Amino acid sequence: MGLFSKDIKTMDDLFLHGLKDIYYAENQITKALPKMIDKATNRDLTKGLKDHLDETKNQIARLDQVFQKLGEEPKGVQCPAIDGLIKEGDEIAGEVADKEVLDAAIVGAAQSVEHYEIARYGTLIAWAEALGRDDVVRLLTTNLNEEKAADKKLSTVAVRKGVNRKAAS
Amino acid sequence: MGLFSKDIKTMDDLFLHGLKDIYYAENQITKALPKMIDKATNRDLTKGLKDHLDETKNQIARLDQVFQKLGEEPKGVQCPAIDGLIKEGDEIAGEVADKEVLDAAIVGAAQSVEHYEIARYGTLIAWAEALGRDDVVRLLTTNLNEEKAADKKLSTVAVRKGVNRKAAS
Repeated sequence: MGLFSKDIKTMDDLFLHGLKDIYYAENQITKALPKMIDKATNRDLTKGLKDHLDETKNQIARLDQVFQKLGEEPKGVQCPAIDGLIKEGDEIAGEVADKEVLDAAIVGAAQSVEHYEIARYGTLIAWAEALGRDDVVRLLTTNLNEEKAADKKLSTVAVRKGVNRKAAS
Repeated sequence: MGLFSKDIKTMDDLFLHGLKDIYYAENQITKALPKMIDKATNRDLTKGLKDHLDETKNQIARLDQVFQKLGEEPKGVQCPAIDGLIKEGDEIAGEVADKEVLDAAIVGAAQSVEHYEIARYGTLIAWAEALGRDDVVRLLTTNLNEEKAADKKLSTVAVRKGVNRKAAS
């Protein structure tokens, strides 16, 4: 995808670009999550992140199916947004001295990644619907719903399972 | 905030860092929105983005109040996440040849920024509550609710006001 050429001419092109973007993002997330799991201390948090790593692999398999239905090769395109989100999470984790405060920081970083994916899947679903590609909407909706559930679980870990309370005490 | 020093020792430090992060983000957004407004064609979209630019300025004023209540100087800290999100929006906008497809791309980029802010304000509110800083929760909640409303308005512009339909036709 050339930065100075106008390669996106149609909504189909835009949709395919968006798909490559989230494909790249999901693959980057499978690399970032194990590092977050290593740094986390709270058991509910590490379990939640591990579960989401498994989910993410299934989400990539669903995206493979979407590419297949479009007659395209599964392929990512480097996107600065997810790189920035992951970099920000790494930086903040590197700056936190206390383990319990670090857990709270990890939840925050993970939720910002979840919200990026929620935004992207929401947009892709709306675009697929406009293009009449109902055959891929179901797959994308399954991924969207998993991201929303993962975000809620992280809120539960932070608020009800005591991550924030312990960090603040 | 040194990258290789462990400057964040307490939850108060983490909260202040998060506040500086969103302060930087909101200020970057006030610079990015006018460029998006210039590129957009659909009237509902340009109006929505202009309204949100005004809202963003009010949100910064509320963050100034939060800093004041904490006895801190309002200050941003450069954060790769919002830089990446804005860069991604710029790049995609530069690659789209068709004006109506560009409108659809702009909505998608704007919604990814909204979701970043929704994530950040949600985290900051949970941290403020854990710290017993109810005096700043109200201000942050007002900002959060505005971001959620802005995200919904963008969905309406994309789906009901015909941005996606025109882009796909």
